[in-house]
Formats: sequence, C-alpha cells, structure tokens
Amino acid sequence: MRITRHSDYALRTLMYLALKQGSVVTINEIAERYGISRNHLTKVVNRLHQLGYLRATRGKNGGLTLASAPGQISVGAVFRDMESSLAVVECVDEPGACVLSPSCRLQGLFNQAQAAFLAQLDAHTLADLLPPETGRQLRDLLAIER
Amino acid sequence: MRITRHSDYALRTLMYLALKQGSVVTINEIAERYGISRNHLTKVVNRLHQLGYLRATRGKNGGLTLASAPGQISVGAVFRDMESSLAVVECVDEPGACVLSPSCRLQGLFNQAQAAFLAQLDAHTLADLLPPETGRQLRDLLAIER
Repeated sequence: MRITRHSDYALRTLMYLALKQGSVVTINEIAERYGISRNHLTKVVNRLHQLGYLRATRGKNGGLTLASAPGQISVGAVFRDMESSLAVVECVDEPGACVLSPSCRLQGLFNQAQAAFLAQLDAHTLADLLPPETGRQLRDLLAIER
Repeated sequence: MRITRHSDYALRTLMYLALKQGSVVTINEIAERYGISRNHLTKVVNRLHQLGYLRATRGKNGGLTLASAPGQISVGAVFRDMESSLAVVECVDEPGACVLSPSCRLQGLFNQAQAAFLAQLDAHTLADLLPPETGRQLRDLLAIER
C-alpha cells in the first residue's frame, strides 16, 4: 500500500516552493535538490500548473511559484488531485473484477478506512507541514539560501 | 494508492472459507469461483498457512479450512501480515530516499493517516464482513451450496 510517485513528487514540489517563500524556482533546481528524475518531475509540475496550484513565468528568469498561500493548500486536496485512482481495491473502480461485489462488505470497509486516511490529510495544509523551526531545518537540508 | 493483490486474495480466500462453514476447500475451487490465477492464489494460500490462518489436510479429500473462528480473525491483522510493506511513502522504509527525511512532517502525516486506515480494519473481524443475510447473498454469488 503506497501512494503514487505523482502525489509524492507533487507534495515535495509544493513544499519546496513554499520554502522558497515566493522566489522563482526552476524544475531543474527542484529535481537536483531532491535527486529525482527531471522527466517525471516535469509531468508532475505540468499537472500542478493545470490544476492551478502553480504559477509559471516564461523567459530567462522565469520559473515557478505557488499560486496560493501555503495555508490555503490542503494536503488532502493535492493527494486527491494527483492520485490516478483513489480505489484501494480494484473492485471499487472495476465492478466486474470480483464476483462478491454486489454484496461485499470488505469493499465498504476499505472505503471507510480510506475515508479515515483522507480525513487526516484533509485536516492539514502545506503551512502545517512547515512551521518556522521545521522550515529552517528543511531549508538547510535543501541548501535553500535565506 | 491500492492494497497489494496478496492482501486482496488473502481476505477473499478467508471469506470463502468462512462461507463454507468448515467444509474442506481446494485451491482450485477458490481460484475458479473468483476467476483468479491459481498460481498467484497458491502463493497466498501458502503464506496464510505459514501464518496460521489456515489448516491444510493432504490426500484425495484434502484441502483447506479456517484455523480459527471468523470472529477471531482480524481484518487488520491479515492486512498487516500480507502487505509486503506498510510504508505509504518510500522514505518510511528507505530513509535515504529523500533529503527532507530528517525533519519532514509529511512523513509523519502519512504515518498518522495510515494509522487511521489500519484502525478501521483492526475494528473488524471476518465475522463482521459476513452477517447472516450478507452470507446468504455471497454464497449465492459464489455458488456455494448450503
């Protein structure tokens, strides 16, 4: 049971931009600091831009910034937007996948468990992940100048 | 975000055996009724047997039965036993995977969300998934004779 790389990279990208506090950032910079694939990250950034989480400016000094304040960005919303499917078991999005589906209580239990999972994420914004002292530590780890 | 096929098949196998109410069942029968791969199912059944969830008898009329009453089998315990990793994000089981790890609050939030997910599964046993009316419906769907 693991979240997709899409959600993981999306949340890390938004955290990076929040830590930069409005300075413009390039995809290359984020990929380098996290040591992750530039190609994968580009897809994630494009999606975040389409979804309205990022503002992108073109040109020599262009790059990315957050479109909203970190306190306005729900971790649960990003997760829901970026996961390709929220189905914990295949029968949720493929009703023909299991003969039990019409009367199965396991499916309902997994939906209930997932709702509890999402409720935790929904209760937190990007700002909650980055209180001042944590922000300082993460800027040091990412070599972000203050 | 999806559970592994191992957990899915394990829970369906245990439900099948519970619905058979102590009658001996073969792997072939379970694979056929669910329309799933016999090879994959065999691995899952071997693991369930190792873990003590199943009793297996050899010989011409041999097969599988539950080792405990359905009310004694926790859905959460089966899930924890069968998932190859409970790490929702890779940094939980590979600390070097992300530069943020030493100070990251996202990791903590995902651990908290997963605890909420598991708490729901822990609160249910196999018997809770199979109350009498549901049991009747599932026996019909699986063509289990009464």
